Amino acid sequence: MGLIVQKFGGSSVADAERIFLAARRAIKAKLDGNKVVVVLSAMGDTTDDLIELARQISKSPPRREMDMLLATGEQVSIALMAMAIHESGHEAVSLTGAQVGLITDSVHTRARIQRIQADRLQKHLDDDKIVIVAGFQGVDEEFNITTLGRGGSDTTAVALAAVLHADACEIYTDVDGVYSTDPRIVPQARKIEVISYDEMLELASVGAKVMHGRSIEFAKKYNVVVQVRSSLTDGAGTYIMAEYPGMEDIVVRGAAVRTDLARVLLVGVQNRPGVAADIFARLASRHVVVDDIIQNVFYEHEKSANIGFTINEDDLDMVKEVCRELVSRYGVRSFEIDENVAKISIVGVGMRSHTGVAMKMFRALGDARINIENISTSEIVVAAIIDRDDAEKALQAVHAAFELDKKAEEQTIGKTMEAKPKAKAKRAAPRKKVAK
Amino acid sequence: MGLIVQKFGGSSVADAERIFLAARRAIKAKLDGNKVVVVLSAMGDTTDDLIELARQISKSPPRREMDMLLATGEQVSIALMAMAIHESGHEAVSLTGAQVGLITDSVHTRARIQRIQADRLQKHLDDDKIVIVAGFQGVDEEFNITTLGRGGSDTTAVALAAVLHADACEIYTDVDGVYSTDPRIVPQARKIEVISYDEMLELASVGAKVMHGRSIEFAKKYNVVVQVRSSLTDGAGTYIMAEYPGMEDIVVRGAAVRTDLARVLLVGVQNRPGVAADIFARLASRHVVVDDIIQNVFYEHEKSANIGFTINEDDLDMVKEVCRELVSRYGVRSFEIDENVAKISIVGVGMRSHTGVAMKMFRALGDARINIENISTSEIVVAAIIDRDDAEKALQAVHAAFELDKKAEEQTIGKTMEAKPKAKAKRAAPRKKVAK
Repeated sequence: MGLIVQKFGGSSVADAERIFLAARRAIKAKLDGNKVVVVLSAMGDTTDDLIELARQISKSPPRREMDMLLATGEQVSIALMAMAIHESGHEAVSLTGAQVGLITDSVHTRARIQRIQADRLQKHLDDDKIVIVAGFQGVDEEFNITTLGRGGSDTTAVALAAVLHADACEIYTDVDGVYSTDPRIVPQARKIEVISYDEMLELASVGAKVMHGRSIEFAKKYNVVVQVRSSLTDGAGTYIMAEYPGMEDIVVRGAAVRTDLARVLLVGVQNRPGVAADIFARLASRHVVVDDIIQNVFYEHEKSANIGFTINEDDLDMVKEVCRELVSRYGVRSFEIDENVAKISIVGVGMRSHTGVAMKMFRALGDARINIENISTSEIVVAAIIDRDDAEKALQAVHAAFELDKKAEEQTIGKTMEAKPKAKAKRAAPRKKVAK
Repeated sequence: MGLIVQKFGGSSVADAERIFLAARRAIKAKLDGNKVVVVLSAMGDTTDDLIELARQISKSPPRREMDMLLATGEQVSIALMAMAIHESGHEAVSLTGAQVGLITDSVHTRARIQRIQADRLQKHLDDDKIVIVAGFQGVDEEFNITTLGRGGSDTTAVALAAVLHADACEIYTDVDGVYSTDPRIVPQARKIEVISYDEMLELASVGAKVMHGRSIEFAKKYNVVVQVRSSLTDGAGTYIMAEYPGMEDIVVRGAAVRTDLARVLLVGVQNRPGVAADIFARLASRHVVVDDIIQNVFYEHEKSANIGFTINEDDLDMVKEVCRELVSRYGVRSFEIDENVAKISIVGVGMRSHTGVAMKMFRALGDARINIENISTSEIVVAAIIDRDDAEKALQAVHAAFELDKKAEEQTIGKTMEAKPKAKAKRAAPRKKVAK
């Protein structure tokens, strides 16, 4: 007998009919002889509605109270799901984040899980009940309600799967798996059957919205095999798992574009040791996530340089505040903000063993007459900052160039591109930067 | 410096504007030098909406899950109220029933408070914050979320006032106090300035909807002076407090009619000891609240009698189930249910010291050509079961007969009615039945 964690997103519990559909899946897993834990998001647009309610009261509500408010969304879902399972003649019990013992730090609206005291949940499982858990929420050590930020319900599901040593972690969503890119922008996008944690992590961080990065990090850390699948059909979806030999045969697994970034340029930053660290410490203390950082060179004879970086648009107000402080008190000459940017990225562990990948991407963008403003790379990613108006065109061009619309066995790109020498040795050294 | 508990009902927090109005009251009390605890109900029709949501899933949802669902309503209110107070430049913190340490028994949807571990709340008060508490909800010893049933938020407010030894307990509502009867039915109804716990208890139990009986019981038990007042105007409202000398000068304080009852008649109940106890034990075990019980006499030569009682309409399904059991397994011949009944009641501690009160009420009903089907009395109440179609007419007739539309000093009724001998001695013996 196995233990299965099933997570249903907001659209999969949007109304009574959908709730019963999800309940049926949980019951089926139970009748197949498994212990079942169901993790839920808030129904449909509930979270947005609650945010709107808060906005009517305050433009910048205290984050603690925001968490108090938002946590109600999942609590409604779990109560209704437990009712639906009872109505179908099976035993279920719902548990909030506090009740399931999901303890987080105190960073409200984007808390991190510290530990899970799962004995209460385990007891209900031992009593043969389907346990319905509110995703996205927890409590800190002081018993304040916290939420995990975007994609938090996925994180809850993966964390529970890890702590319970689950045999499967199924993420049900309104798409039937992870795609090579956003099918709404590129209709030729293909479903990916298997993807490694690292690839999924990078895709999530550069704009693939199927699963949030933090949940993948959790899955990687605890080696939880995650299956992303449709709540409406029975396809196998996409497995997200540890890398295995042969994965590098595919040069690029997916491509994505982010249009929710803004670029910040600090002009005339003083050239003395520690100044950059100081700037980013200031941003970090406000919990601003900084994306790529580009600093032009300090020449010996110059007293200052420019530092550019990208941030999430949501943090713009806070970043402007920090920038104003830097200008008024830390000798930065001025700052510029460009909100009309996008970031196009390609991701694949195959980059480790193939050369010329970055060049091929730049050529594809060039052929589409798209100007590249910045370039950044990591071991399995090549990314470029472009004009936001070019975002869709860029994604289509890159997707086609790397033959992502073709089945793996039909792709010719891996064969035409040169394999690097000693490719196999490099695979074992993650995070080491290699030339592309 | 005092400590004030303020409770705002659903209509007083129905939208952002109302929430800011309520926030202003709390802040004013704070600025006047008090520590302030605010207890809230769910916004406007939220609770009804949640019940409707549950009905879409199940006609008889598990009560534990119903509590899980309903508790979200108050959680939304407290978060928004805390935001509104912050937005107005003051410190506030919201606490759920669990966080405030309100421990109840495990009778879901109508739990009773066992104790309150107020140290957390006290700490926030010591930190000079306005503390916003979710009314209506608590947790049992197993940390399951419970709700206190109708009027539960009032109970929370009074219980907190008791445990914190508050100097005032203000119940804000959409009416400006307790009235001699329902002004929608009797436009001549007058606001009552002071009413005793016992009178308010009886009025609540017979249909006055301003405050629920359980909250009054709490207030009486811990001698909390409750002030019921309008959230929209600044009038003093009505004080509910312990009886004091002089209260008995008013013969009847108020009148009310209940139209949410059903009458049950058990026909042919066997005449042997313990059978009635058995019947009502059975109802009690399903948490059915039985109102008046009328049993006709067992004559020596008869083997059976009829037992009648009234119940809340809401419990009708459960009562029918019990009745069917009684018929099939306990020798009861049959049962009849009459849903078209109403109960008209008059309440006043003055009844203890005045005679002829019941007679005067029956004459008023008779003059209005209303047939009395049953009569029940207690020390400070006279009640009659009548046809539901006569409910409003009956209330108007009785209200006029006892001059409830007149100021106390203008009433002639107390003077025209004979004072009982030794009336003062009787006042000290509560619950002892006296002839009316």
